[in-house]
Amino acid sequence: MPQFLTTDESDFESRFAAFLTTKREDAPDVDEAVAAIIADVRARGDAAVIELTERFDRFSPGADGLAFTQAEIDAECAKVAQSERAALELAADRIRAYHTRQMPEDASWTDATGATLGWRWTPVSAAGLYVPGGLASYPSSVLMNAIPAKVAGVERLVVTVPTPDNVVNPLVLLAAKIAGVDTVYRVGGAQAVAALAYGTETIAPVDKITGPGNAFVAAAKRRVFGKVGIDMIAGPSEILVIADAENDPDWIAVDLLSQAEHDESAQSILITPDAAFGRAVADAVEKRLETLERRAIAGPSWRDFGAVITVGDLDEAAELSNRIAPEHLELCVADPEALAEKTIHAGAIFLGGWTPEAIGDYVGGPNHVLPTARSARFSSGLSVMDFLKRTTLASMTPAALKAIGPAAETLAISESLEAHGLSVRARLDRLNEETP
Amino acid sequence: MPQFLTTDESDFESRFAAFLTTKREDAPDVDEAVAAIIADVRARGDAAVIELTERFDRFSPGADGLAFTQAEIDAECAKVAQSERAALELAADRIRAYHTRQMPEDASWTDATGATLGWRWTPVSAAGLYVPGGLASYPSSVLMNAIPAKVAGVERLVVTVPTPDNVVNPLVLLAAKIAGVDTVYRVGGAQAVAALAYGTETIAPVDKITGPGNAFVAAAKRRVFGKVGIDMIAGPSEILVIADAENDPDWIAVDLLSQAEHDESAQSILITPDAAFGRAVADAVEKRLETLERRAIAGPSWRDFGAVITVGDLDEAAELSNRIAPEHLELCVADPEALAEKTIHAGAIFLGGWTPEAIGDYVGGPNHVLPTARSARFSSGLSVMDFLKRTTLASMTPAALKAIGPAAETLAISESLEAHGLSVRARLDRLNEETP
Repeated sequence: MPQFLTTDESDFESRFAAFLTTKREDAPDVDEAVAAIIADVRARGDAAVIELTERFDRFSPGADGLAFTQAEIDAECAKVAQSERAALELAADRIRAYHTRQMPEDASWTDATGATLGWRWTPVSAAGLYVPGGLASYPSSVLMNAIPAKVAGVERLVVTVPTPDNVVNPLVLLAAKIAGVDTVYRVGGAQAVAALAYGTETIAPVDKITGPGNAFVAAAKRRVFGKVGIDMIAGPSEILVIADAENDPDWIAVDLLSQAEHDESAQSILITPDAAFGRAVADAVEKRLETLERRAIAGPSWRDFGAVITVGDLDEAAELSNRIAPEHLELCVADPEALAEKTIHAGAIFLGGWTPEAIGDYVGGPNHVLPTARSARFSSGLSVMDFLKRTTLASMTPAALKAIGPAAETLAISESLEAHGLSVRARLDRLNEETP
Repeated sequence: MPQFLTTDESDFESRFAAFLTTKREDAPDVDEAVAAIIADVRARGDAAVIELTERFDRFSPGADGLAFTQAEIDAECAKVAQSERAALELAADRIRAYHTRQMPEDASWTDATGATLGWRWTPVSAAGLYVPGGLASYPSSVLMNAIPAKVAGVERLVVTVPTPDNVVNPLVLLAAKIAGVDTVYRVGGAQAVAALAYGTETIAPVDKITGPGNAFVAAAKRRVFGKVGIDMIAGPSEILVIADAENDPDWIAVDLLSQAEHDESAQSILITPDAAFGRAVADAVEKRLETLERRAIAGPSWRDFGAVITVGDLDEAAELSNRIAPEHLELCVADPEALAEKTIHAGAIFLGGWTPEAIGDYVGGPNHVLPTARSARFSSGLSVMDFLKRTTLASMTPAALKAIGPAAETLAISESLEAHGLSVRARLDRLNEETP
């Protein structure tokens, strides 16, 4: 049974606070093992990567086989059904169109002192995208990571994907091809992250690593952070649906299940002003769970971490939503735009009953890599910005230095940083000599 | 002696590679102590914070005294000289003007299918700024952290600053006041970071923590990352000056020393196409070091980590600069704009001989919190973006769902995520019923 909460009950606050802090995931502590793998790859390069692949993925790529050849990629891609290829291409086009609009602009202006100021965005030179193998090998995630990198202008974009028993998901290779990935390596785990961060004879190092992975991959990304940039460390998926009674309970039920089926630690929450509607949705979830293919995953997720919360009105719903700060937020109400104005902490908002969250996972256009575990309070989903960095620019004229240099000197002296002050003073003295 | 390198020497590549990877800082491992402090503050709140302040800062604030009162702040601010106050205000105005231009825009558009897409930026609700006490207590850093937060629209902005022996730097309080900080707490160390992240009876938790600190503060920020957002963990400061022979060697010398005086681990590098000029600058540095107040810091920094690199031409200089990816880059050449086009990895660029880096530390306008240790390859300086997060928005019409929903269903099925597919299919079926 999911939790049923109602804001007008006297113990609501304590139950909701406990619900908010329920720990949903105990990541195994693999840090020591990961440290050893990274050290091994740094020390022995390809040889270590190949041995670790033999051990964990049960095949030997050999140094020549670490990267897929173009012929191998073409052969795998040929296995993909035309309908799937067309769907991937439609998704790629829409993701590209959305992310192209995210490109930030450079700026440059001259202020009243004559100082020219501004900034400039440039792409990261090389990026590596980790793609999981096995169950969580999602071609959609390849598009969601690779396309923003390409839009940003990353010069060299590579993928690493584990291929246990030397078997690869052809859709992953096709998605990489569609997205414009340069090279795909058949390597996974912490060894792939180490190779991307430090480089080997075959795998050149990158500057930024993104993409999801298991506990080993997450620990490795944490460890190489600083040497390279990383995206977020994502937790289990979440959805919050705010829905009034004017919705089909079954639609809302499958929306809740679409996150629950990801992972037993996923979380699906319904907030509704109508208690009877809430019960109807919970009933519809149970009915769908009877036949759902992934009921062994979605069932425990819904029962252990799901919740139906009845509120007095939509303002109360917005307030709770902001405390939850959900990864995905569906607003199935009469005026979703008005409610969206009030739900200020969320990774992605889906407005209205015709916008199931799954649209955003695949073809909507916005990114599906989003902040989890309440981190939407302070962070954003993946975007082109993750593959760009900003350099600030400043250029003084003698007049500008004369206008603002003395203040810099004063502050430098107040901070006991004499050389800072002298670097300004030396120039001001020259100006004073020239124009006494 | 700093290193003298010349690109036309046969061993240049190996010497430069070794120079690039020289480790400049051995941070003490304080992680266990920090973990204990955080656990203590989480368990005992104010009582733990007060005891730790008694132990480390040698005075007892009491729960009532954790925050400075307005009267205390006013009394301290009254001690500041008028010239310093005016300089801080000029700096604040310029920093505010620059960062106001950084505010990103929301977007919303309707595409050919009828889908409305976009994104929205909202501020982090509450932010905490850590300000070091003692030697590295820089009022300019208060402005550089607090003003972007205020420009972003952060509702509650607080400062924590250790005040050993109950002594505070009045300039820090004045800078906080000018920047619009709401509350200043006289707490430092890991206990301050823990209080900001988890909250105590007196100190409400924040969503984002920024600001520099010692090894304890850095370790605490790493540990609370995820619970709250943090800015970068900054390493020792760096400057790279690319200068031709048309410069006054003494100007370049003080520019190099303005970073060297920060820290014995700081790094100052000159790249020049003129070997004689390089030697003249090195001589000028030695001469300035004879009398510099902080020669005991700047001297070791320059001798242990400084370098003068002679190159064949400015293209070669740009290439080396990109491998160094410096925090600060001064371009003292005839056409700095042209060279800036080629130096693509840098935190901040200062163009032309009239733009000493120290201008950027105080009054230029751009932020002085910048990526160190080669991380300018993949990250940016502090900005209003650090205090904002982006929510993506999507709204489908029935027609839009009809146009792109089937592709989402196809991809969901190919990823074995049945409920994802069903959430689209349930709606498509309704549309097909309605318009057979």
